[in-house]
Amino acid sequence: MTQKHQDNIAVAHQRIAPIIHRTPILTSDSLNIITGTRLYFKCENFQKVGAFKMRGAANAVMSLSAADQKKGFATHSSGNHGQAVAMAAKLTGNTAYIVMPENAPKAKIAAVESYGGRITFCTPTETARKEACDRIVEATGAHFIPPFNDWAVIYGQASCAKEIYEEYQNLDYLLCPVGGGGLAAGSILATQTYSPKTKVVLAEPENAADAHASFKQKKHIPVKNPQTIADGLKTSLGSLTFPIILGGATAITTVSEDEIIAAMRLIWERLKIICEPSCAPPLAAVLKNKEQYKNKSVGIIITGGNVDLSSLPF
Amino acid sequence: MTQKHQDNIAVAHQRIAPIIHRTPILTSDSLNIITGTRLYFKCENFQKVGAFKMRGAANAVMSLSAADQKKGFATHSSGNHGQAVAMAAKLTGNTAYIVMPENAPKAKIAAVESYGGRITFCTPTETARKEACDRIVEATGAHFIPPFNDWAVIYGQASCAKEIYEEYQNLDYLLCPVGGGGLAAGSILATQTYSPKTKVVLAEPENAADAHASFKQKKHIPVKNPQTIADGLKTSLGSLTFPIILGGATAITTVSEDEIIAAMRLIWERLKIICEPSCAPPLAAVLKNKEQYKNKSVGIIITGGNVDLSSLPF
Repeated sequence: MTQKHQDNIAVAHQRIAPIIHRTPILTSDSLNIITGTRLYFKCENFQKVGAFKMRGAANAVMSLSAADQKKGFATHSSGNHGQAVAMAAKLTGNTAYIVMPENAPKAKIAAVESYGGRITFCTPTETARKEACDRIVEATGAHFIPPFNDWAVIYGQASCAKEIYEEYQNLDYLLCPVGGGGLAAGSILATQTYSPKTKVVLAEPENAADAHASFKQKKHIPVKNPQTIADGLKTSLGSLTFPIILGGATAITTVSEDEIIAAMRLIWERLKIICEPSCAPPLAAVLKNKEQYKNKSVGIIITGGNVDLSSLPF
Repeated sequence: MTQKHQDNIAVAHQRIAPIIHRTPILTSDSLNIITGTRLYFKCENFQKVGAFKMRGAANAVMSLSAADQKKGFATHSSGNHGQAVAMAAKLTGNTAYIVMPENAPKAKIAAVESYGGRITFCTPTETARKEACDRIVEATGAHFIPPFNDWAVIYGQASCAKEIYEEYQNLDYLLCPVGGGGLAAGSILATQTYSPKTKVVLAEPENAADAHASFKQKKHIPVKNPQTIADGLKTSLGSLTFPIILGGATAITTVSEDEIIAAMRLIWERLKIICEPSCAPPLAAVLKNKEQYKNKSVGIIITGGNVDLSSLPF
């Protein structure tokens, strides 16, 4: 852990504090009994735009000079990152250009619009998205904010685990889901800074297990078009996030689609909160490895709450 | 407001604090924009057993002498009150006898069992329930805890509004749903004690509007077998709760089934929390009377979160 990471996380947290929520940490006696552990759920589903992505986007926006901020911000995303960039730009009085696939869910489009984001639609391919975003950046001078493979974004996401350690100093484990690895890498850096004895375990769908494969084989192995209900976790690790995860994660646990749905339902029923399928792998991992977590103190990051109530998996 | 109520609420709150949760108050920028108000949601869905009923049951149990507590507690309930009495007895090392209709949902039976309650099944009529409960009280010497028409229960429920006023001193309104009136009466007494300028408005399904009729005609008019999705609000006011409500409520607003479902969905989608249909009438009342609440500070009690995820109204 270098002094640089530590400073950058502290600065990021202080910088974004005025425009993010400090989210609550919830506990549930019944989930503690079911798992045999003491679980602490950090509820980023209550974060602005309903997801932790607000932290990274806010830090990316606010770390630029006022002159650069005025040129605006661009990203391509059909999900929470696009909403977060739109909201962070709005709250700082700047412009956000969001490229979305033309088949994006109406609710996601409406959310970006409600935050004042200027939407450009494109054909739903990775190449088309990137090209559309590049064109906007070239035409406007807007600053591109990547969804995870970016230091400002990673330091912003790190503020979430930092808040957990400010409330709970002696966690044995911190679990978070892993997709592109922005939250995972940020959580590892925050843990190394603020709670070095805590083990960070990442949880991932079996159906999108690039992080597990990369971690095991110690080389970056992206996957293409994985299919999982945890749609926030389809992305593969990036060039910045992979080395941090390789060096700092204790383990990466994979869970099945059924295990994800069962854990999601338990969170809804017992914690009484709405979370996305992408939030459920950590609890599924604890349920799958009860002996390992027995009588331990375990932090779990609930990453977001943007679900379509009309198409639930239960 | 007599000194007696004030003292009893303070004593009740102090007494039950060790075995209840101090629940969080959540806000939502988007709900504030939609309603044009500043809303503060007191989340009793995060309370033990998932409902505010835990407060009243805890106070009823803990206000007895140790010798009387040892004789146990009895009630008849197919809902949250039965679970609350079972939990309050368990947490104080006592016995709970819960009479439930033989057609009670399996999840409710399992919940009471998981809290160690001793269940007696009866035919699903009001008379059969009361008789079965009376027999238990006679045989065991257990203390009967009514669901709402009881001073210890009312003072326990009052602790909820007390906690709201400890965090927010200048609310213009406090809204809560009204069924039997335990929470409503408790909230009125707490408001008169701790925030006398705050107006208390009760919200009720049109389909179970006994409180509205009783309030308007200034006499106690119970209704029989009302049909509403807000199943916690089917009960009519009691002899203790009616006069408190008549003397202390500013208004009683009725809302339709569609308005209840729409408000419930908004709470799920925007606050990212699970609440019962019975929680939704207050938000529905605000949406129905936007002008009245414009730019006001409004507390709303989210009363419980025990829903069957397999049969949602949306």
